[in-house]
Amino acid sequence: MGREGKRLMYRSATEAEDAFYEAFAQQDVEAMMRVWAEDRPVFCIHPGGDLLTGRGEVEESWKQIFQAEVPFHFELEYHYREEYDGQFAISQLTETLYLRHHVVGIVLATNVYCGTDEGWRMIMHHASPPPGPDAPESGMPVLH
Amino acid sequence: MGREGKRLMYRSATEAEDAFYEAFAQQDVEAMMRVWAEDRPVFCIHPGGDLLTGRGEVEESWKQIFQAEVPFHFELEYHYREEYDGQFAISQLTETLYLRHHVVGIVLATNVYCGTDEGWRMIMHHASPPPGPDAPESGMPVLH
Repeated sequence: MGREGKRLMYRSATEAEDAFYEAFAQQDVEAMMRVWAEDRPVFCIHPGGDLLTGRGEVEESWKQIFQAEVPFHFELEYHYREEYDGQFAISQLTETLYLRHHVVGIVLATNVYCGTDEGWRMIMHHASPPPGPDAPESGMPVLH
Repeated sequence: MGREGKRLMYRSATEAEDAFYEAFAQQDVEAMMRVWAEDRPVFCIHPGGDLLTGRGEVEESWKQIFQAEVPFHFELEYHYREEYDGQFAISQLTETLYLRHHVVGIVLATNVYCGTDEGWRMIMHHASPPPGPDAPESGMPVLH
């Protein structure tokens, strides 16, 4: 997987990120794992989840998420998207997740990509839920 | 602030990160804001918090956190720490927060730094709580 030639190479971080959200929406584990780097450490934190390290743990988590087998799609609102020197890229965005026409989740995500010998790949996805409506004061934590 | 000469320059991402956690433990807002970049966008997500953008929102959040005025310290467990080409660095770590000798918080943090004309500075801090003891299955989300 991931070594089957040029068609798997993402030529930019943006292309890798598009593939990430496409695989996510399609609930396609193989396509998802092609986006993640193979030759360096990878890290993933799902909303409310623990730190997952390595392709094995990351893949297992997506399999569990995709078990639901319900059609959904994303609305992505970008706050920041920067590429450094062809080596490294970072995105900061809000993911709004829809099941049919209903919003079922809002997530704050930080995605990190690296330029590797096999094209651009994801090395980190850190996602967390924003405060709920009953939070003490929106956006401000009481204690770190 | 942050333009007072060489003593404020962090010569590496590691030095900037040390200053970040030192300012955090000391509850020193000025020292904290010296760590954050001035010449590019900055982003901060505290555990359970919303996305904060820009130095103004970031500073305000630290002021609120530091209001508690209780002495605490950190234990930092690093999972990943990489610097790319002198331009960009990322850390992935678990922060264990102690009040006197009691653990009062555990946080998963992703920190991002940039090499700027004024030395290394933080551009992003994304922190989230790990799953609680009553989570359905540690580390694995039910739905993203």
